[in-house]
Amino acid sequence: MVNQHYQELKDSYLFSTIARKVAEFQKTADCKSRPLIRMGIGDVTRPLCPAVVSAMRQAVEEMGQEGAFRGYGPEQGYGFLRQAVQMYYAGRGIGLDTDEIFISDGAKSDIGNILELFDRDLTVLIPDPVYPVYVDTNIMDGRPIVFLEANEENGFLPLPDELGPAGLVYLCSPNNPTGAVYNREQLKQWVDYANDCGAVLLFDAAYEAFIRDPSLPRSIFEIEGARTCAIEFCSLSKTAGFTGMRCGYTVVPQELERDGGSLRKMWLRRQTTKFNGVSYVVQRGATAVFTPEGQRQTEETLDYYWENARIMTEALTAGRIPFTGGAHSPYVWLKCPGGEDSWSYFDRLLHEAHVVGTPGSGFGRNGEGFFRLTAFGTREDTREAMQRIRSL
Amino acid sequence: MVNQHYQELKDSYLFSTIARKVAEFQKTADCKSRPLIRMGIGDVTRPLCPAVVSAMRQAVEEMGQEGAFRGYGPEQGYGFLRQAVQMYYAGRGIGLDTDEIFISDGAKSDIGNILELFDRDLTVLIPDPVYPVYVDTNIMDGRPIVFLEANEENGFLPLPDELGPAGLVYLCSPNNPTGAVYNREQLKQWVDYANDCGAVLLFDAAYEAFIRDPSLPRSIFEIEGARTCAIEFCSLSKTAGFTGMRCGYTVVPQELERDGGSLRKMWLRRQTTKFNGVSYVVQRGATAVFTPEGQRQTEETLDYYWENARIMTEALTAGRIPFTGGAHSPYVWLKCPGGEDSWSYFDRLLHEAHVVGTPGSGFGRNGEGFFRLTAFGTREDTREAMQRIRSL
Repeated sequence: MVNQHYQELKDSYLFSTIARKVAEFQKTADCKSRPLIRMGIGDVTRPLCPAVVSAMRQAVEEMGQEGAFRGYGPEQGYGFLRQAVQMYYAGRGIGLDTDEIFISDGAKSDIGNILELFDRDLTVLIPDPVYPVYVDTNIMDGRPIVFLEANEENGFLPLPDELGPAGLVYLCSPNNPTGAVYNREQLKQWVDYANDCGAVLLFDAAYEAFIRDPSLPRSIFEIEGARTCAIEFCSLSKTAGFTGMRCGYTVVPQELERDGGSLRKMWLRRQTTKFNGVSYVVQRGATAVFTPEGQRQTEETLDYYWENARIMTEALTAGRIPFTGGAHSPYVWLKCPGGEDSWSYFDRLLHEAHVVGTPGSGFGRNGEGFFRLTAFGTREDTREAMQRIRSL
Repeated sequence: MVNQHYQELKDSYLFSTIARKVAEFQKTADCKSRPLIRMGIGDVTRPLCPAVVSAMRQAVEEMGQEGAFRGYGPEQGYGFLRQAVQMYYAGRGIGLDTDEIFISDGAKSDIGNILELFDRDLTVLIPDPVYPVYVDTNIMDGRPIVFLEANEENGFLPLPDELGPAGLVYLCSPNNPTGAVYNREQLKQWVDYANDCGAVLLFDAAYEAFIRDPSLPRSIFEIEGARTCAIEFCSLSKTAGFTGMRCGYTVVPQELERDGGSLRKMWLRRQTTKFNGVSYVVQRGATAVFTPEGQRQTEETLDYYWENARIMTEALTAGRIPFTGGAHSPYVWLKCPGGEDSWSYFDRLLHEAHVVGTPGSGFGRNGEGFFRLTAFGTREDTREAMQRIRSL
């Protein structure tokens, strides 16, 4: 009667396990004299920028006034926000129709829900290590998963050479958890592969705003041929501190067809049937992110995190601990010193340094022996944590 | 490669067709001298109440302040809101654990997404006429649907007598579109049926706040035995004008098990994997609905709509047009005069009275010959629309 694939899911979600371990540790340890520093879950800490707050303030007032009040909005998002996203892409030379842009309550929801459009026997390629949501959502559907080996040898950036055909391919660049970023030539290989074998690329661009090098692609749609093979998921969570606000967007190009049908039309049908759009107040806040003022203020916050990442990678370099990420990513992916395994390094860091990170093995088999730190903390915490890590 | 069941969906969603017809009409007709009155889509028009606006105002300020800012919240909703919902149920004598309450971005999302927990070959019972989302979401999964005949003979309230076993049963009371309300004895028959054959009741309580008669059940959990067979979906959309805010809640009781597993645990896993919770600002607004002040102000808005419904049913009674609903529901379901079919009555009302309603046939085969009007308009519009309808 019930979906038996749920039994194939691992018992508990990575971050729940971490939360439980931390809670247990806090009961027994003295965290007052040496406070716990959290560099684990990828949550932001800087407040929303003034432009966003001001836009939401106004939207809240509207919702309380006769005449200004708004009820149901379009399921795919208000025109004003879709146009703002359109202009954001246009600024990088990418032409999108507003009908191709779907406002979401975050990339996680859409990355999960998009699977409803596809057969359950389709083979799925997922890099390992990876954001656990890609794996779990496919296990729930019973889809066969083939892991792409991401490791030190390929700089955690697997390529399609010699791969057989597949149905769906997940790519995340800048990558969560490794912070590795594909260049144009590498993404072009994936686009060509997908167009050749008919696969659909599910491109997770949640961290695109952290790319500082203009030669690195921030969208799959910078790559020729992507409009016939790719769906892009993006989020304001990390870009503009929206983890608690819930707003993102998904781009499904008009040219993307499979089995003779438009995936854009299918997604529109899915969303109009099972979703009722994002809160008006949140959409007004999101729109402010894309104004010149919002972009300037957002940039300041990104600079703050980026400087944290610089402090982190500097400390690791000085400590001769190998890592990837940090340059164009809020994540730093380090090799556990002395060949320690990920959970034992997690425990040691928690107990001896009072620092919480994320064990690499939680992201897949290839993550074993690695560890993820995030640049989303405060400056002081970041400095202090890196000092503690170095002195371990 | 793609989910072929999407091809079995009817070409366009009911409300999109209405919107298109209205847009076409507005291009050709003089709607300036005789403005269009919309009594079709079930969208509210009264602004959010002051308690809600004030709570959101404060939450917006918090999100802009260091220290007060909040990132990711719990996927199943903040404790403060789940406790408020718990107290709301407790006020009607229903004991719920906060772990059984899941905050959603609206009943529509959860009603669609809950299906992921169930096998795709499970037989689904759906009343006809019905909210189209129940049907479309099951077509998308390819589940076999058996329609329950709701008609004038049974007062649009089908009962399980002589039904064979089924997997899932949708019940909506007060009903959308008919406005009919099940009494306790009737719901008890459904609960007994479900417990006997192992079916799960999906109880849509989105309109519970419109029930004025304390002897009528506002929750399936008022019925003995429901905790082993029912999931309840509720929404603040109609209760507190949240159609543009997006917040609701779903109750999955601990005792609800199938195939030896807990549906509550499965739903928790689904939500933590594919959802990231509702915006903090919206959750603060929703919590204010349940304060004494919020309840009083919400009641005033409900009174406003309820008086509209009274004006509507009074006019229909005077015009000798048979109807159900209106007493404990924002919907009035009338029989098209003179045996006219639903879409032709829709066209006539649009063209001759400049009033937009919803054709009953859009809700299923048994809706043919009926028409849905909603009480969510302004007082003047409601009075004017009923006058125009009567003079047709």
